[in-house]
Amino acid sequence: MGILPFVAELALIDHHCHGVLRVDSTRSEFESLLLEADGVSALGGSFFDSALGFAVRRWCAPLLDLPRHASAEAYLERRNSLHITEVSRTFLMASGIHTFLVDGGFQPSRLLSALELSSLAGAVSRDIVRLEHLAEELRPSVSAADFVPSVRARLASGGAVGAKSVAAYRVGLELPGSRPLDSEVEAAVRAWSGERLADPVLIAWLAWEALDAGLPLQFHVGYGDSDIDLHRCDPSLLTPFLRATSGLGVPVLLLHNYPFHRQAGYLAQVFPHVFCDLGLATHGLGHQASRVFAEALEIVPYGKFLFSTDAFGLPELYYLGALLFRRALSDFLSDGLRRDAFLEEDAHRIARLIASENAARVYKL
Amino acid sequence: MGILPFVAELALIDHHCHGVLRVDSTRSEFESLLLEADGVSALGGSFFDSALGFAVRRWCAPLLDLPRHASAEAYLERRNSLHITEVSRTFLMASGIHTFLVDGGFQPSRLLSALELSSLAGAVSRDIVRLEHLAEELRPSVSAADFVPSVRARLASGGAVGAKSVAAYRVGLELPGSRPLDSEVEAAVRAWSGERLADPVLIAWLAWEALDAGLPLQFHVGYGDSDIDLHRCDPSLLTPFLRATSGLGVPVLLLHNYPFHRQAGYLAQVFPHVFCDLGLATHGLGHQASRVFAEALEIVPYGKFLFSTDAFGLPELYYLGALLFRRALSDFLSDGLRRDAFLEEDAHRIARLIASENAARVYKL
Amino acid sequence: MGILPFVAELALIDHHCHGVLRVDSTRSEFESLLLEADGVSALGGSFFDSALGFAVRRWCAPLLDLPRHASAEAYLERRNSLHITEVSRTFLMASGIHTFLVDGGFQPSRLLSALELSSLAGAVSRDIVRLEHLAEELRPSVSAADFVPSVRARLASGGAVGAKSVAAYRVGLELPGSRPLDSEVEAAVRAWSGERLADPVLIAWLAWEALDAGLPLQFHVGYGDSDIDLHRCDPSLLTPFLRATSGLGVPVLLLHNYPFHRQAGYLAQVFPHVFCDLGLATHGLGHQASRVFAEALEIVPYGKFLFSTDAFGLPELYYLGALLFRRALSDFLSDGLRRDAFLEEDAHRIARLIASENAARVYKL
Repeated sequence: MGILPFVAELALIDHHCHGVLRVDSTRSEFESLLLEADGVSALGGSFFDSALGFAVRRWCAPLLDLPRHASAEAYLERRNSLHITEVSRTFLMASGIHTFLVDGGFQPSRLLSALELSSLAGAVSRDIVRLEHLAEELRPSVSAADFVPSVRARLASGGAVGAKSVAAYRVGLELPGSRPLDSEVEAAVRAWSGERLADPVLIAWLAWEALDAGLPLQFHVGYGDSDIDLHRCDPSLLTPFLRATSGLGVPVLLLHNYPFHRQAGYLAQVFPHVFCDLGLATHGLGHQASRVFAEALEIVPYGKFLFSTDAFGLPELYYLGALLFRRALSDFLSDGLRRDAFLEEDAHRIARLIASENAARVYKL
Repeated sequence: MGILPFVAELALIDHHCHGVLRVDSTRSEFESLLLEADGVSALGGSFFDSALGFAVRRWCAPLLDLPRHASAEAYLERRNSLHITEVSRTFLMASGIHTFLVDGGFQPSRLLSALELSSLAGAVSRDIVRLEHLAEELRPSVSAADFVPSVRARLASGGAVGAKSVAAYRVGLELPGSRPLDSEVEAAVRAWSGERLADPVLIAWLAWEALDAGLPLQFHVGYGDSDIDLHRCDPSLLTPFLRATSGLGVPVLLLHNYPFHRQAGYLAQVFPHVFCDLGLATHGLGHQASRVFAEALEIVPYGKFLFSTDAFGLPELYYLGALLFRRALSDFLSDGLRRDAFLEEDAHRIARLIASENAARVYKL
Repeated sequence: MGILPFVAELALIDHHCHGVLRVDSTRSEFESLLLEADGVSALGGSFFDSALGFAVRRWCAPLLDLPRHASAEAYLERRNSLHITEVSRTFLMASGIHTFLVDGGFQPSRLLSALELSSLAGAVSRDIVRLEHLAEELRPSVSAADFVPSVRARLASGGAVGAKSVAAYRVGLELPGSRPLDSEVEAAVRAWSGERLADPVLIAWLAWEALDAGLPLQFHVGYGDSDIDLHRCDPSLLTPFLRATSGLGVPVLLLHNYPFHRQAGYLAQVFPHVFCDLGLATHGLGHQASRVFAEALEIVPYGKFLFSTDAFGLPELYYLGALLFRRALSDFLSDGLRRDAFLEEDAHRIARLIASENAARVYKL
């Protein structure tokens, strides 16, 4: 169950992640950031008693010069005795990620910027524009009449290599199969009150605009925090949208997908512009990641699957996301080689495709 | 593939089960009780040719002094040559369950009571009140005006350690995200005709009342008999209800969940009051239970997962539910230890949490 | 990981397949026929880089006297240097299928007929009538008034051993739980314009008519090409239809089912007339087929599961469908024997049921 040497040495492009926290975390903050819950429950016990919690103790402790499986207390004490910048640098450097595509639009004030992140990691970063955040930023400062051209101008400005939609969190994934009419969009802008964008017309329109601007479009799919209704985050709900946008030739990327990773693989197989990953679910499953990773690769062509961490806040998550991805990919390829399913040179090619080449092609890096 | 010694010796709390039949079963009755079908189909062959059927022959036969894998005929002949009380005692004692939480509200006349059950097993039993059964019992004897206070009085009477909803069987799990208004409840009581309760307002109201009474609330989720529409038993449909009840601090327990056990794990992770199990699906999968058990534990914190058998009618099902749970838990922990995912002391703690400590905490046993 | 000898020697009934192409294929045509996409995407790379693509190189190359894992280029060059009839005969003969039940209603002009197919294979073929194709063929030549009796006459003519519905592709699987009224059917016939049948009333009516004619009724379920909305192909959506038709005593067969194979197993367990298979997903998963095959067998009684290939166009798919089925069945039985779940004689019986005996019973072959 070691990692195949050629997988251990792969340089990775993390095509979807966020920034790391600027400051130390209390135990309660740390546990909250580990999982998708709002916080630890007295009813349910510590989140260190979870697959990911054990992975922190097993894999992260040694990088802070602690023994494997150090206790949660010892781990956090040691972590907080170091400067957070050192902790972050350590885990980022150990991840082997050479390029980060960063969605910086969620809680930006708490986090290092993309540039700070890649600088710490000795790596490169590129921006992914979070569509709903962009709209929410623009809305107070422009008139309803200027909103549409302002969004277009921002998307056309070239600052980002891709766009991200969190439709899943706001309205679910059942986007319409046709472009919203300009009149509908304008009416929705005028009707929008409050800070948070949750209008289905505007959210769909933003997705179309991103594709029009030629930006590869990421969708959060599947499990996330308690804001989502999981059954409304089944990627097959995107089918009408995917069918309608298939001819545009701009990639659409389905993120995470758990527990709908098989559905995502189906969509990536049948639609020429659709790609998928396992994102968050890779480190979220800890020592069980390999089985689900293999499931995610059942029917997706290997030219359509990418690596990402979806790491947010804790630098440990970049490291664990990369490490558990390598272990899962290695297990998948080792199993295939043991079954004589493909040649070793094929295994090398599959590994390179998934680790970075698919991302480089999709995002034109 | 043996069972780890510390798992073999775990004393279990079965947080969801029913009673055992008072009488012997014919072959046809026995086969019907094995699976969730109404009966055996001439088109489809014997239910002994199923995962659970083979588990009976493999594991139960030796407890009746037959060789492993005795034929179905030999098994039933031997079983019926013994007194049903002896058969029941044998399997109940062998299960290692020390506390049974019994939903006695389904076909009570056919079954031993909770007290009779635990007495046979040399164990303790506590009652789970089946909400729809309670309402159906009360309705004929109270006026519409007295129905609401009567239900409240019964739930407040302290006779039960938890409540159970079979919303899945009656209306599906898409319960509303807010408490039904008193006026709606009264109108629904007046409109209720017939014995069977299938009114969505009343079923949702019962669930809220149970939580108000501080009773941990079990939901049947996922597969069951042919009365259900499986896609309406996806636990994510409960999300609005779970979001609305999260602040009450009273546990909600998602039972069985197969094939939505990953969805259940997600809900148990993100909502502080949500717990889950694999129940019925453990023995229902026979020799394949370990894989699904591991899936069920992918993202749920280990403080949120419980043991149950959902055994009904056949005493074999308590024994097989407990045995196959032990095997699956042992396989899960052995795999984790082999991968160096956690220490042996961690494995012991996870085992104790799932076997009984989580249930003791949730139900205040 | 070899195949158990008694599984290797099983004679198979392929209860759902199509014809093979009459002519050679270009590389682009070949890749398109491998997967469910309309074609290869420049964005996504060759479909030879997929589980099925590697299975062709691994398993099919040696039958054309090439080394295992021959390159895609070498494989196609060699294949096109032979007469397509020889290629087809080679793979069909090697499949070990002795009876083909052929749905010839999709793109019939491109394909060998059922008779030509079985003649090439030295086997027997029987027809499955594709209901929507039958309706589409009849509609132009009969008046609206004659449509209903004409369909009935064709179904009663005895030419087919079963019927097939592609409701999944046309309207989804949420068929009504009661027979459409004659007046609704007649109105729908009159309202039907265009060639393609996509009327929910007519599609449901055809399904009822097939059962009335005593024809075992196959449903496409789960993944297929990009025409489907996958979430509308969940077999549990058929529950009202299955409940309503349960008493007719005519088999209903759920095809493929991936990724809803667990839902299909549930339906086959609880409804006496329901059966299922893994069809297309067997060869579609290549070296990963065994895990999903085991999942599909979790709760389905072994008298309710069948073998099929769903092969279309490429003769390789019959061979791979049969071969990967044998490997998956062998892995399933070997695992059960290793765990002492059943006796070797039981394993033999399970194998015969799934390979051919269930199909022979269902279709009265």
